[in-house]
Amino acid sequence: MTQEKELSSVTKWSIRMADGSSEALAPEAGLPCRAWIALKSMIFGLVLEVSNFFKKAWHLGHNEPRKVIHCLKVGMALTVVSLFYYTRPLYEGVGGNAMWAIMTVVVVFENTVGATICKSLNRICGTFLAGSLAIGIHWIASQSGDKFEPFITGISVFLLASAATFSRFIPSVKARFDYGAMIFILTFSLVTVSGYRVDRLMELANNRVYTITIGTALCTMITTFICPIWAGEELYMLITRNMDKLAYSLDGCVGEYFNGSGTSADGDKESDKKLLGYKCVLTSKATEEVMANFARWEPAHGRFNFRHPWKQYLKIGASMRACAYCIDALDCCVNSENEVPELIKKHMSNISLKVSSESSRVIKELARTMKTMKKSSTIDFLVGDMNSAILELQEDLKSLPNSFINLQPLQEAECPEKKNIGAVALMDIIPLVTLASLLIEIAARIEGMVDAVEELAELSEYKSVADEKKQHQPISKTSDEHKEEV
Amino acid sequence: MTQEKELSSVTKWSIRMADGSSEALAPEAGLPCRAWIALKSMIFGLVLEVSNFFKKAWHLGHNEPRKVIHCLKVGMALTVVSLFYYTRPLYEGVGGNAMWAIMTVVVVFENTVGATICKSLNRICGTFLAGSLAIGIHWIASQSGDKFEPFITGISVFLLASAATFSRFIPSVKARFDYGAMIFILTFSLVTVSGYRVDRLMELANNRVYTITIGTALCTMITTFICPIWAGEELYMLITRNMDKLAYSLDGCVGEYFNGSGTSADGDKESDKKLLGYKCVLTSKATEEVMANFARWEPAHGRFNFRHPWKQYLKIGASMRACAYCIDALDCCVNSENEVPELIKKHMSNISLKVSSESSRVIKELARTMKTMKKSSTIDFLVGDMNSAILELQEDLKSLPNSFINLQPLQEAECPEKKNIGAVALMDIIPLVTLASLLIEIAARIEGMVDAVEELAELSEYKSVADEKKQHQPISKTSDEHKEEV
Repeated sequence: MTQEKELSSVTKWSIRMADGSSEALAPEAGLPCRAWIALKSMIFGLVLEVSNFFKKAWHLGHNEPRKVIHCLKVGMALTVVSLFYYTRPLYEGVGGNAMWAIMTVVVVFENTVGATICKSLNRICGTFLAGSLAIGIHWIASQSGDKFEPFITGISVFLLASAATFSRFIPSVKARFDYGAMIFILTFSLVTVSGYRVDRLMELANNRVYTITIGTALCTMITTFICPIWAGEELYMLITRNMDKLAYSLDGCVGEYFNGSGTSADGDKESDKKLLGYKCVLTSKATEEVMANFARWEPAHGRFNFRHPWKQYLKIGASMRACAYCIDALDCCVNSENEVPELIKKHMSNISLKVSSESSRVIKELARTMKTMKKSSTIDFLVGDMNSAILELQEDLKSLPNSFINLQPLQEAECPEKKNIGAVALMDIIPLVTLASLLIEIAARIEGMVDAVEELAELSEYKSVADEKKQHQPISKTSDEHKEEV
Repeated sequence: MTQEKELSSVTKWSIRMADGSSEALAPEAGLPCRAWIALKSMIFGLVLEVSNFFKKAWHLGHNEPRKVIHCLKVGMALTVVSLFYYTRPLYEGVGGNAMWAIMTVVVVFENTVGATICKSLNRICGTFLAGSLAIGIHWIASQSGDKFEPFITGISVFLLASAATFSRFIPSVKARFDYGAMIFILTFSLVTVSGYRVDRLMELANNRVYTITIGTALCTMITTFICPIWAGEELYMLITRNMDKLAYSLDGCVGEYFNGSGTSADGDKESDKKLLGYKCVLTSKATEEVMANFARWEPAHGRFNFRHPWKQYLKIGASMRACAYCIDALDCCVNSENEVPELIKKHMSNISLKVSSESSRVIKELARTMKTMKKSSTIDFLVGDMNSAILELQEDLKSLPNSFINLQPLQEAECPEKKNIGAVALMDIIPLVTLASLLIEIAARIEGMVDAVEELAELSEYKSVADEKKQHQPISKTSDEHKEEV
């Protein structure tokens, strides 16, 4: 018996393979040992994951300290609102309903001022409207006797909740009053249904509006006066930053193509990342819309009025995206495998680089116009330069066939077996022709950007640099200084 | 006095113009009359706006009846939850906390099943976690004496609220647990702060978890069993619909260019709208991401398993967008003002149309693969056809210079004053060359789509049509019928 046991404990496991041979497996480790290894690897994996998570969080906080400040602001607001509970006199005044103030702070406090104000107003209006309506319906129900009361309340809850939910699907309501509609349903249901039990209905509704007002006022004050993050300014920064990225990408793509892609050994990844900056423009639509939606709730701040034309920024964003689509196509054509003969590439190099640099100069000037918020005095010249560069490009394209003829003997000398060199040459220059025609299209779309920015300048009454000069005329020296600063 | 008064009442007002002349104004109507007109126009405007709003709402409801059904579902859920108040026995059980059930229904009930389940689980987990933590901290605080208690609770609220708010900025948390983090802050603050006053803390926390569970269970049941809208299916439909749109746009753009844009007098707007279908692909990124996020919470439904690879749909969407960028550039090049000579256009017409139709056939086949959820047996052939069409296109481009030479005498006969016809011709065919090279690029990007869809087929284990055949082999007739159906 013992021998058998010993034998089985050292049995070698083997697997019979498909071809008839068998393969021996190494004897496995004991159960406790395996469990220990599994546990160790699990704990190790968990620790690794958690440490990775905290590393990411640390990077996030390090890169965007404003987010950390926002978190501290939320903590502060909640602690302040807790005072309602801790301080006896306040407690007597507001009573157990202070809960609503806490809830309001948690729900309403958002990252940007605009979002907080939007939610606050929505919450107050929704609560007030629903409260009044619920009291009215409660009165009607109470007049109609005990039997009908539950039916009237039930049906009114059903109808109004359905209608309010439906209104949240309508785009114009959704954009501005989505949260208000939800609060309307919530308050209406709560007050109507409580009305059946709680006798002090008016007091309930009153208290709710009162505490919510305290909560929203606190949130609005903290978010506005302590390190405020304005949705409008975020939108403005996003658009100008994206414009710079667009200019850099355009310049970089064409430059990389003509000056050789393997130029930069050091910082290659960094420059590659910068070249792909246009992709930020492609994906920023949703953010822009959210920001523009919140920005319109914000009071005047910094250089922006209350009725600043935020919607125009969306138009500028759309025109930038149209441009970015073309740059995406350009980027591919630049990275295509078809190699253009060096001679022809050189022939077109100067003018293509000129077009791209003129185009990106226009974009940079637009970004500068937006940054300084002054009408540009040079934009017309720059657009003119861009267009004349485009004309030159077209002229150069026209002269290309002549270059073929010049090239033919040259290339034939190199490779005498080729008969129809001209044909090969046209095939070879296709990427170049595509690049040129995409550059022309990009220039057309940049003019769309110029129009959009000029419309913004009109709408928000940017001063022109010339106007500024006139104002400063008597003190000519400072005016000059000012100009240099700009 | 009376004369003076009469005089003043008929005084003619006049304005002195800039050039010194003055212009008389017509006597204005009386105040009541003006007020009446203003009031009338205001009421009229209001009525018009309101009726427009309702018209829009009606259209929305008419076009998407499922949204109306969702609204009725919300109304129903709220009415059912109100029963907690109306029915005495239930009331005795849950008590005044039924309020939390109502609140849960309002907040948690979303359009799609996935969103409702996601919010429900977030709410339950957030509440439970925060509740346990709050009770623990309350116990510690109560052990440390009356003096320190408010400080400990206050500091813990501050720290945990800040930390939880920060976690909402971390992308991986935001995508899945944003709502849960908010509920965590809310519950923790409420329970901790109430703990100072309310003695029956455990009961409060217990009741809250209990009522929330009732509310979320009700929502989940109603949203899953009554006309469910699955986020996963919405995503799936969106992607397949967009694929069809992409195929139509590609085919249409090229077709419109070669077959003349002024062909369709009737239904022109309709077809224009269809041609611009690719724009839907450009703007659907945000929707896709939201849907994919919710879809992963959904149980198995219809043809989708629980662990269906929803993330792969995002990859497919991205590859479609890459394609759409190129179609956008193509659309512009098609609509450019540069006119290509008819002869050359005809020369390239057949092959370009062939490439575009082969390309769109590949896209349509991909859409069909996704619709039937079976591995396509023809996709490799179709991709081969597309690539050989591309090769033909490149051959034709190579032969173009020879066509120039053939054309030259022809065109010279027409306009003998032109010397360098060859040069003009190259300039003229630029849109055509661009179109061709964009078509080549689009074909390359379509291969990216093919890869993404094939990866999806692997991940979700689509059966191939051949496998199906094998299964049906004994009953050969039905297998054939089945094949035709597919």
